[in-house]
Amino acid sequence: MKKLDDLIDVFAKLPGIGRKSAARIAFDVLDRSEAEVDRMLEIIKDSHTNIKHCKICGNLSENEICEICENEKRDKGVICVVEGVRDVIAFEKSETYNGLYHVLGGKIDPLNGITIEDLNLKKLLDRIDGSVREVILALNPDLEGETTSLYLTKFLKVRDVKISKIASGIPMGGNIEYTDMATLGRSLEGRVNVDDEN
Amino acid sequence: MKKLDDLIDVFAKLPGIGRKSAARIAFDVLDRSEAEVDRMLEIIKDSHTNIKHCKICGNLSENEICEICENEKRDKGVICVVEGVRDVIAFEKSETYNGLYHVLGGKIDPLNGITIEDLNLKKLLDRIDGSVREVILALNPDLEGETTSLYLTKFLKVRDVKISKIASGIPMGGNIEYTDMATLGRSLEGRVNVDDEN
Repeated sequence: MKKLDDLIDVFAKLPGIGRKSAARIAFDVLDRSEAEVDRMLEIIKDSHTNIKHCKICGNLSENEICEICENEKRDKGVICVVEGVRDVIAFEKSETYNGLYHVLGGKIDPLNGITIEDLNLKKLLDRIDGSVREVILALNPDLEGETTSLYLTKFLKVRDVKISKIASGIPMGGNIEYTDMATLGRSLEGRVNVDDEN
Repeated sequence: MKKLDDLIDVFAKLPGIGRKSAARIAFDVLDRSEAEVDRMLEIIKDSHTNIKHCKICGNLSENEICEICENEKRDKGVICVVEGVRDVIAFEKSETYNGLYHVLGGKIDPLNGITIEDLNLKKLLDRIDGSVREVILALNPDLEGETTSLYLTKFLKVRDVKISKIASGIPMGGNIEYTDMATLGRSLEGRVNVDDEN
């Protein structure tokens, strides 16, 4: 049945959904009332139309400027540079950061044709006026993330701003015995003086 | 952000989708072009409006009568009774059956308040006129499925029609050693005479 196949295709195109799950979802949706389906479609349309990228930091926002950039209680002197919006959400959930963000929208990845020009970099440089004390690089600790961090450091070094990078090491609750060599090496390199913490 | 939360909720309500996957899907959808999203919404709306249940057997159909019931090449003398539309699709994929179906739309499940009256049973009885030779009960071999089969047998016994039930046993490629007791018991009970097959 063509219409059913089309419906299953729609769901199979969502990330992480295989064909079997897509079929299950399709049958579930077909079983719903018209009102329920209309409500679902309306929410998708409305969010797609009204959720934009913040003009300052690139985070998702219902307004021109996102809630974080607009929040007077946030420390405007620190900018945490992340790859994507999901990283912002992760840091916000951790409730350990009170500065601003800058969403690059990716990382340098020559194999997939993503160069420094494809990233939301110019706006970051524009933001670093006298009021910003520190830029924290918080890219994923993989090859592309590290490369991007190196580039960003090069661009930022000429500005009068402290540049830092989030620590890599053994995750909390992790096990030294089962940790890969690269992470172990990083945990040693980035060791902190415990006297400092007192 | 309310709109983002609403969007994630929409996907989290789909069967088998947890909150993390829903968020991933939401970001993916937000990243799509307006044309792509509109096309997706249009397909969902169109299928929901135009896919109905076949008036004869209860299978999904774009027309009043489904493709299987309308197909002149199918054997109209045999009706295979299944719980849901997905079971029809499974049998059709196996390419081992050429009769008609009857979709009950569930099985007797007192704990969830589903009684014999909630099932598409009256139409099944109406279908059993002189032209139907055999009714095959193909419900899932669990407590509710077995109960439903017993009830159906009771209703059908008074008609002049052969009633059969699909075999339960060790699945093809399965392992006797790891098969549960109930299935092993069924495989013995339902043993077939190999002489018959020659």
